[in-house]
Amino acid sequence: MSAVNRQIRLARRPVGVVRPEDWASTEEPVPSPPEGWFLGRTRYLSVDPAMRGWLDDRPSYLPPVGIGEVMRAGSVLEVVESAHPGYRVGEFVTGTFGVQEYALSDGSGAHRVDPGLAPLPTYLGALGMPGMTAYFGLLEVGALREGETVVVSGAAGAVGSLVGQIAKVKGCRVVGIAGGADKCAWLTGELGFDAAIDHRSEDVRRALRDHAPDGIDVYFDNVGGPILDAALSRLALHARVVVCGAISQYNNEGAVQGPSNYLALLVRRARMEGFVVFDYAARYRDAARELAGWLADGRLTAREHLVKGGVDDFPATLQLLFDGANTGKLVLELA
Amino acid sequence: MSAVNRQIRLARRPVGVVRPEDWASTEEPVPSPPEGWFLGRTRYLSVDPAMRGWLDDRPSYLPPVGIGEVMRAGSVLEVVESAHPGYRVGEFVTGTFGVQEYALSDGSGAHRVDPGLAPLPTYLGALGMPGMTAYFGLLEVGALREGETVVVSGAAGAVGSLVGQIAKVKGCRVVGIAGGADKCAWLTGELGFDAAIDHRSEDVRRALRDHAPDGIDVYFDNVGGPILDAALSRLALHARVVVCGAISQYNNEGAVQGPSNYLALLVRRARMEGFVVFDYAARYRDAARELAGWLADGRLTAREHLVKGGVDDFPATLQLLFDGANTGKLVLELA
Repeated sequence: MSAVNRQIRLARRPVGVVRPEDWASTEEPVPSPPEGWFLGRTRYLSVDPAMRGWLDDRPSYLPPVGIGEVMRAGSVLEVVESAHPGYRVGEFVTGTFGVQEYALSDGSGAHRVDPGLAPLPTYLGALGMPGMTAYFGLLEVGALREGETVVVSGAAGAVGSLVGQIAKVKGCRVVGIAGGADKCAWLTGELGFDAAIDHRSEDVRRALRDHAPDGIDVYFDNVGGPILDAALSRLALHARVVVCGAISQYNNEGAVQGPSNYLALLVRRARMEGFVVFDYAARYRDAARELAGWLADGRLTAREHLVKGGVDDFPATLQLLFDGANTGKLVLELA
Repeated sequence: MSAVNRQIRLARRPVGVVRPEDWASTEEPVPSPPEGWFLGRTRYLSVDPAMRGWLDDRPSYLPPVGIGEVMRAGSVLEVVESAHPGYRVGEFVTGTFGVQEYALSDGSGAHRVDPGLAPLPTYLGALGMPGMTAYFGLLEVGALREGETVVVSGAAGAVGSLVGQIAKVKGCRVVGIAGGADKCAWLTGELGFDAAIDHRSEDVRRALRDHAPDGIDVYFDNVGGPILDAALSRLALHARVVVCGAISQYNNEGAVQGPSNYLALLVRRARMEGFVVFDYAARYRDAARELAGWLADGRLTAREHLVKGGVDDFPATLQLLFDGANTGKLVLELA
């Protein structure tokens, strides 16, 4: 076991794009767990668009990461030392343990996971927060009904790829918007989407007219910006726009670009609604059971985009999200 | 009876601010009603912010007014000649009869009104479309609950002034946003609002912090633009934003200014929803009965801003709305 615990801390608040100088790499001695605690070694780190919001000092659904604090992150730990009666060495847990090689836990916020039931990275994806986000965002906030037309942006990402697949399970027509021909081919091929729009090479508004000729019943937005406006221009009557994220806007140095077409909500008697997945925590277990069932019978495909490296690779890995470089759930696998 | 029927027609589509040249004043002989029809003389013309939207050639909840057509408008007619068994000379009806001195009707879309129960202009305001809009927008779309904090923009306008008063009837705290000290004094004085914010002289965001310290539960928006953004920045958890209109944006030559703060919907688990009052037509009668009851017992004050003139004064009267010159429902009373 390494004698040091390497950690990535927030050194200063980024303005716009996150820069290497915004982070600090630090070392601490690996702690020993006191009575009632266990020590885990980080095996997989979750790298998420929401992280960008946690770096800004403004009121949000979670307090911002403090300057000098270990960066907040979900991860899969392997228990390597235990003074907790409920956790044995060799077990795996997920939780919000931060961008560091080792973490102590008293078990609060830790969830035991079984590598025999699903690959460990899947517990950060389809069976983790992205899975919960897709599930509750689409079914509860989006109030999806069978036979509707669903459009999802960021469709090749962790959440978007699950949103589209869940909508297919529910008997809907699904159109994904993603950046690049490879991603689009994956959506309509392996994932079974009815259509995919490559926003890098296509006019999204025109393509939506072709692929959602009767209008969009549920638009699940992960990106904001011009794609949100294009979707608003094609809403069906009584449509629901689910505001999950706005990755196109997170690195803006100035104001967020608001949806110029928001008056479509009036014309189409539609609603736009935001949510935070944590509000559904009491129902995670049931959702995970249903998602695991769909994974088991092949109706759902979980894909993780693994980057292998050390915690020092976290900053560069985070940037991949904003470059649109990942397909599926982005995970940093610690060597 | 005048031998001519003077009419205001749309001569060309306005770009930005509506200009005098966008209208044409025409004359036709006053028609005689064929069997089953009646002839009405226009007594009061409704002048509404929504009219601006009807002039643009884009898909909306109603088809645009065609070039050369008589301008669409609600009005109160006095029946002056009748070949319809259900309507007698001297009776009054409301309906969408257009900006003209006379109109024929077969009774479809005509609603008989009683000048003994309420002044005729009130049937274009509190007991007409603005009343229905305020009632269903606030209670149905806004899903108002007793004790909540309601903020309404365009608060001294036809709809806004009713929204605030209905919210008071329902036991809510009400903050109105309006332009000018006189309007604000009217809101907190005669109408009983708890607070009013003068957006011409106050920092709306700061004032909302003072007057809605626990956040806004229902924001009823008539204006869009920076005031919508200010309200979004102060939403309470699970807030509802009712999109009724956006008068600050209707005359834009370029794109509408979208709400830059729309991601507050996510952070506050809130929704923004549009509506069109016509969808509630089956329930107008019940709503009007309830509103009339509140008017009768003094809990609701109906105020109309009467401009006296001819149909040729319609263009200038419409402009008053965009200048913020009216307090209460703007009505053109034909001499």
